[in-house]
Order: sequence, then structure tokens, then C-alpha cells
Amino acid sequence: MPSITKTMFASAADVEAAFYDALALGDIEAMMAVWAEDEEIVCVHPGGTRLFGYMAIRESWVRIFSSQRLKVHHTLQGHHNEQLSAVHYVLEEISVDGEAAAAPVMATNVYIRSALGWRMLLHHASAAPPDALAGNLQVLH
Amino acid sequence: MPSITKTMFASAADVEAAFYDALALGDIEAMMAVWAEDEEIVCVHPGGTRLFGYMAIRESWVRIFSSQRLKVHHTLQGHHNEQLSAVHYVLEEISVDGEAAAAPVMATNVYIRSALGWRMLLHHASAAPPDALAGNLQVLH
Repeated sequence: MPSITKTMFASAADVEAAFYDALALGDIEAMMAVWAEDEEIVCVHPGGTRLFGYMAIRESWVRIFSSQRLKVHHTLQGHHNEQLSAVHYVLEEISVDGEAAAAPVMATNVYIRSALGWRMLLHHASAAPPDALAGNLQVLH
Repeated sequence: MPSITKTMFASAADVEAAFYDALALGDIEAMMAVWAEDEEIVCVHPGGTRLFGYMAIRESWVRIFSSQRLKVHHTLQGHHNEQLSAVHYVLEEISVDGEAAAAPVMATNVYIRSALGWRMLLHHASAAPPDALAGNLQVLH
């Protein structure tokens, strides 16, 4: 009989590591295991619309994993921790099918702690300008 | 003698209202009054880099307010509330100098509650695809 136990993540950092591992492996079950179950989860892929809820988010990852192989080098640039929630600011340097993306991606990841341990509530990722590392500003709010 | 008392916001929703009021008025003091003071605050303008800290964020708003007049119609699409923090998902329909932007902007706003009341910790705004309202997905993570 297969085990149906779910991973319990002990910290926001553990969820984050599992998220990027799942992304690198293109593993849809591992990817969906990091998300909160009893909350409305939200995901914005770079250039994409805002997706609400498990089904829409799962479908988006299935589509991404079926069409390309991603390699993501991620760096935590800052964070804010509360007892029951955490916000992480991550810089993602992405290669798609071996080709480096033109610009890094800035992700805001929000985690919450529930009876099931820590889980991801939000992933909001958007492309930085190509000269992002030079610190240029763009004026349109 | 001028008053130096700061506004105390009673809820995340109050901070959000003040944020969009300040944006509409181009009022830099009102804008900076909504941000948390004793935390590292973070702001991503659409198409811009991620800004960390009070000085960088203030400078960006000074630049924005000095160069253009923004009109923003904002709609709360979802939220997650904790006792000491809240995440709001806002859709912004923006006009710049009377011209409607090509696409709406999706903002993730994070608020925290401190001894000073509720304040903004994060504003992460990124442009939705022009066909965002049709619900299309974009495959690059």
C-alpha cells in the first residue's frame, strides 16, 4: 500500500529548498507538496497572470514542466520572519533548456505555518530589467 | 510648532487605502508614512529592480511623483490575514498622465502590525500580460 503521508516542513527555508528542488527536477508532485492546502494559494509566473488556487497553479506547473527544462540558481536577498509567516525575497537566475534568460527574476515567496508545518502561500515572480544588476530604476510605478 | 505625530493605522486595509491615496495625490510624505519604520522594507515597481530600505524606496517615489501624474483604480482580489501580518493581492489599473497603461498591474502588498500600528512591509508590483483578463498563461516560469 503506497504511503500517502505528506512532507512536514520544519521551516520556511526548508519549504523554499524543496520548491527550488522540485523546479529543478520538474517534479509536479514534489512541487505541489510545498503549497499550503487549506488556504487560497497564489502564484504569479514571470510575465503571466495571477493564478489563484490549487488547480490553476498545478496546471501551470504541469504545462511548464512538460515544455521545458529549467535550471534556477536562487539567492536569498532578504527576509522577514514572524512566528506564523515569513516573507522571502529571492533572486532567480534562470536557464531554459540550457539558455540563460536575459534578466534575473525577482521572487517574493510567502510561507505560513499551519498544523501541517510550513508551506508556501504565495510565489510572485517577475522579471527584473536586463540591467537590474546595475541598479537602474524604472519610473513607471 | 509643527506636529510630528505619525498616523496610526488600525488595519492593513487602512494602510492600503492610505497608500493608494498617497499615490493618487503624488504626496511623498503621505506615501512614506505608510511604510514600516523599523524593518527592512521592500518595493518593486513594475519593470523595475527590487529596492530595499527606506532611502531607496523614498527616492524612487520622489522620482515617480516628479515626472508623472498617476491615476490608479485598485481592486482587492484576495487576501490572507494573520494576527500580525496580512498579504493583499491587488489589481491596479493605471493611467499615466491621462493615458491608460496597456496592461493592468498585479501587486502583492504585505502589511505587518507593530507597536506603531499596521504598516506596509512590501509592495511587489509587476505588469500583467496585455491579455491578462482573458486568463492566458505564459509558460516561462
